[in-house]
Amino acid sequence: MLILKIKSNSREELVEITERVAEKLTNSGVAEGIVVLYVQHTTAGLTVNENADPDVPRDMLHALRTLIPQHGMGFRHGEENSDAHIKASLIGPSVTIPFKDGKLLLGRWQGIFLCEFDGGRERQVIMVIR
Amino acid sequence: MLILKIKSNSREELVEITERVAEKLTNSGVAEGIVVLYVQHTTAGLTVNENADPDVPRDMLHALRTLIPQHGMGFRHGEENSDAHIKASLIGPSVTIPFKDGKLLLGRWQGIFLCEFDGGRERQVIMVIR
Amino acid sequence: MLILKIKSNSREELVEITERVAEKLTNSGVAEGIVVLYVQHTTAGLTVNENADPDVPRDMLHALRTLIPQHGMGFRHGEENSDAHIKASLIGPSVTIPFKDGKLLLGRWQGIFLCEFDGGRERQVIMVIR
Repeated sequence: MLILKIKSNSREELVEITERVAEKLTNSGVAEGIVVLYVQHTTAGLTVNENADPDVPRDMLHALRTLIPQHGMGFRHGEENSDAHIKASLIGPSVTIPFKDGKLLLGRWQGIFLCEFDGGRERQVIMVIR
Repeated sequence: MLILKIKSNSREELVEITERVAEKLTNSGVAEGIVVLYVQHTTAGLTVNENADPDVPRDMLHALRTLIPQHGMGFRHGEENSDAHIKASLIGPSVTIPFKDGKLLLGRWQGIFLCEFDGGRERQVIMVIR
Repeated sequence: MLILKIKSNSREELVEITERVAEKLTNSGVAEGIVVLYVQHTTAGLTVNENADPDVPRDMLHALRTLIPQHGMGFRHGEENSDAHIKASLIGPSVTIPFKDGKLLLGRWQGIFLCEFDGGRERQVIMVIR
């Protein structure tokens, strides 16, 4: 059971954590199985997507913001972050990624991202190797 | 392999199941690992989100209903629940949550919810401890 | 660690893979646990939904296309497939399904689908039995 502390700097941001996960996996010495990442927050999620062109994360946040704007949808939750809660559940609180020979079996263009929807903050992600 | 039967009372409802999952985990006697919850239905999902303010689940259902209304999007499926099928896949049929010392590693504000999109019904969730 | 190669024929398509997963599970000889499926691409996802009426997958793709059209949302990513990247993260890159007595514990109406959002292509899915 490992812990990753992840810092976001903006209200909405995709923070890539691929290298940190890969490093912890290497250090574990386990050869084959699955890595489960789980975010302990209700206004952030975890996803896998393209890490080559920064316009992909930018377009993702832009589309989510267009569909679910912070204001104007008739939200009642008083903290003015209902949009963030909803985006968190749409993206999901965890990702499960297979690995072999100690290496994450990510595709050619895949990176792992913490999806921050109500930052900047420090977030905590649990990592389990099974 | 455990089974949870969960009753919903409205067409759309978030039913919190955190305590029931925690109790089954305690009863299993297993100290550390992951809990996988899996809903055996195509118009319901599972998520983790805030369980303190009931306006958060309310706002979530409201936003999903605004984006994907039951009628008026040109759906062809004859049961008038295409919206529920789509919401189910957006939220997802399963959640995976780490635990340690027999306790779910949920964050401070996190609860586990069955997301009912075509109730009220009795739903079945499979729980696996690994 | 098993590999499934899956062919899509259209830009957007739900390709059912239930039988192929079930067959590999049977061949493994493992009785009980979880199957993790993971897609190694950033413009495709994996989901579980109804496999009886083909209008359900049709309506799902239609709704996603209505919410996140390929053009007109102000995307900057130059490959004209930002919509596909976003849909991939909304649906998610993996599904985890319990099994018992060598059989997937799918509900009565559930099938497993590769969600193609930028095809037709050959896609690769990793299957882990744990």
